[in-house]
Amino acid sequence: MSHAEPQELLERVRAQSPVVHHLTNWVTIYDCANIVKVFGASPVMAHAEEEVADMAQIASALVLNIGTLTVDFVEAMKTAARSANKKGIPVVLDVCGAGATRLRDEKVFELLSAARIDIIKGNASEIARVAGESVVTKGVDSTEIEKSHLEVAKKLANERSCTVVITGKEDVVTDGTASYMVKNGHPLMAAVVGTGCMAASVIGTFAAVEKDLALAAACGLACYEVAAEQAAQGASGPATFKERMFDAVYTLDGDAVAKMHKVVPA
Amino acid sequence: MSHAEPQELLERVRAQSPVVHHLTNWVTIYDCANIVKVFGASPVMAHAEEEVADMAQIASALVLNIGTLTVDFVEAMKTAARSANKKGIPVVLDVCGAGATRLRDEKVFELLSAARIDIIKGNASEIARVAGESVVTKGVDSTEIEKSHLEVAKKLANERSCTVVITGKEDVVTDGTASYMVKNGHPLMAAVVGTGCMAASVIGTFAAVEKDLALAAACGLACYEVAAEQAAQGASGPATFKERMFDAVYTLDGDAVAKMHKVVPA
Amino acid sequence: MSHAEPQELLERVRAQSPVVHHLTNWVTIYDCANIVKVFGASPVMAHAEEEVADMAQIASALVLNIGTLTVDFVEAMKTAARSANKKGIPVVLDVCGAGATRLRDEKVFELLSAARIDIIKGNASEIARVAGESVVTKGVDSTEIEKSHLEVAKKLANERSCTVVITGKEDVVTDGTASYMVKNGHPLMAAVVGTGCMAASVIGTFAAVEKDLALAAACGLACYEVAAEQAAQGASGPATFKERMFDAVYTLDGDAVAKMHKVVPA
Repeated sequence: MSHAEPQELLERVRAQSPVVHHLTNWVTIYDCANIVKVFGASPVMAHAEEEVADMAQIASALVLNIGTLTVDFVEAMKTAARSANKKGIPVVLDVCGAGATRLRDEKVFELLSAARIDIIKGNASEIARVAGESVVTKGVDSTEIEKSHLEVAKKLANERSCTVVITGKEDVVTDGTASYMVKNGHPLMAAVVGTGCMAASVIGTFAAVEKDLALAAACGLACYEVAAEQAAQGASGPATFKERMFDAVYTLDGDAVAKMHKVVPA
Repeated sequence: MSHAEPQELLERVRAQSPVVHHLTNWVTIYDCANIVKVFGASPVMAHAEEEVADMAQIASALVLNIGTLTVDFVEAMKTAARSANKKGIPVVLDVCGAGATRLRDEKVFELLSAARIDIIKGNASEIARVAGESVVTKGVDSTEIEKSHLEVAKKLANERSCTVVITGKEDVVTDGTASYMVKNGHPLMAAVVGTGCMAASVIGTFAAVEKDLALAAACGLACYEVAAEQAAQGASGPATFKERMFDAVYTLDGDAVAKMHKVVPA
Repeated sequence: MSHAEPQELLERVRAQSPVVHHLTNWVTIYDCANIVKVFGASPVMAHAEEEVADMAQIASALVLNIGTLTVDFVEAMKTAARSANKKGIPVVLDVCGAGATRLRDEKVFELLSAARIDIIKGNASEIARVAGESVVTKGVDSTEIEKSHLEVAKKLANERSCTVVITGKEDVVTDGTASYMVKNGHPLMAAVVGTGCMAASVIGTFAAVEKDLALAAACGLACYEVAAEQAAQGASGPATFKERMFDAVYTLDGDAVAKMHKVVPA
């Protein structure tokens, strides 16, 4: 039995239009909702402690992002994640800013203990921090780490029995056994706020329609980044690029994805 | 005495530049503020329990949206709505996501009891839920309901002695006596996050300058959707469409509105 | 020793990529982050009481904006500001909406007492209110004040031993001794939500790389507004203008800034 291709999962997302429940940050919350929407799925943002469990029950994936965390907000994340666990839908955690403050590190580990997190996503320095590797983090931007990204990701995936995604110039995706590199994307993605957060939303959207979570994450990132490549053509800077990217996702053609995607086993 | 036309109310909004106070959701809060601004009015977003009553006193309309409600946030909404009632300015409630969770339903009914809500706005499934009709809601997206939209809207308008707006391919507006259909708009409005929330802000903006609230709502929606029709021409997808829509509202021509609007008695 | 020119500080921002920590409002938080990003610096938005002190320690400037303040949020601002004071990094306070409600006025004065605020920024009516001048405020929009803007700004700067910025058609910047006018910008800036908040973020970004804070503020505003002038060319309205402005900042050329900036001593 062969793996699904990115374009096949794209079709599945459009056909099933899964509800993707988010507890995310206040900076890019619109972008996270909108990227899910233009992929043809249905975003729901809800964070009240009193309703997150109910909302997770009508969702097909849950995306958590600690970008603008507070203590109460993380409690609601735990409640949502436990509800998602009960329903058996995938939970994605974007460890945005891990390493920047003690609070972030503590809350990431609390979340990992409080519920089953199916996919941990971050940039190289964030994931290294969660994996216990030594890094120097500068704000929410990535810095260099010592080991190879794949090595760090595999270590964390095996320790936590989950899928790990490191986004960057080349994305690394692994569940500890199967591993992929996604070599799509464009430098303008790093020049605009929101592309990293949206990546987590895309991963959640694709994980909603495919049980092989490493494959889902890799295919989602490939589709997203193929659209980014298309959007970069003719963009006059990061803002026009970002707008064109939403349009490119909305009009993304399966045949183009089949030709352009660079998902390779690692 | 004949009714005001949409283009007349548009001129009134631009001439009076009413302050429109919002307690809205964190996803589309920018869009809600910006649509009010490009219409020539003055948005104010303020939600602190300690200041909402004061802020409502300097406003000409109040817009409430429960999209990312919390328990505390709804308490501030009640305080703001009571202050608005005292001043005699219209209160619009966007029942965003009603039916999705118990919390949303409870809080909608609490709000309807705690203060006079002048205009209830939602999509067909949300309004049906508030009216006590049976529906199946999928996240924040609309699903089919059994009765005609106008029938449901009229029932709710009469029960609650308010104006009810159901947005959709064709919008229904009724105060229980006078009813309108607004047949403007474009399918791209449903492909981008925020157009529904902005509709409530537009309704509030027009209700700030016209006491006949059903007429104000219908005229506001017509202006907004005529701009959307103009914006859709030449848009390459939902994101360019949305950007062009803000520009189209800003440059909206009264004569074009007079020719293009499709507000009809229902 | 002559003063640095705007284009020199622009180069410094791009070379040093300072981390700019924000506690800002939920309406324009994305815009504030993104304007910092396209200038080549590194935005961090974090407001949890438990982490703001730590986050300020890895930043080179702190920007506070009370646009959607709550009581708790202002407490976190105080903690962040005290941490910034300890590190010796500049603190910018955007007194957004000062004068609109008692809460805003009270909280502005509390903030000014609780920590050293290095730069107070607002429009003419907001600054006049903080300076104790009589004004009538209409929501968050400016109204006329009696004295000249420079006179009001100097008074406040001397009273509070800080730098004061009044944004408007012509910006006034003063530390009580050195004063500047910045005569760049475009009327479309006033037609779109977010340009005022972004101005505070730009000021923080430039203050992160230049100890003469009045000079830093004036140069930052000049670069921002030169980009706005470039963006306005060919814009079809406020939304395309704003998008083009982000691109124009990203691609802003030092020589163009040198030619186009209108920073003059006042």
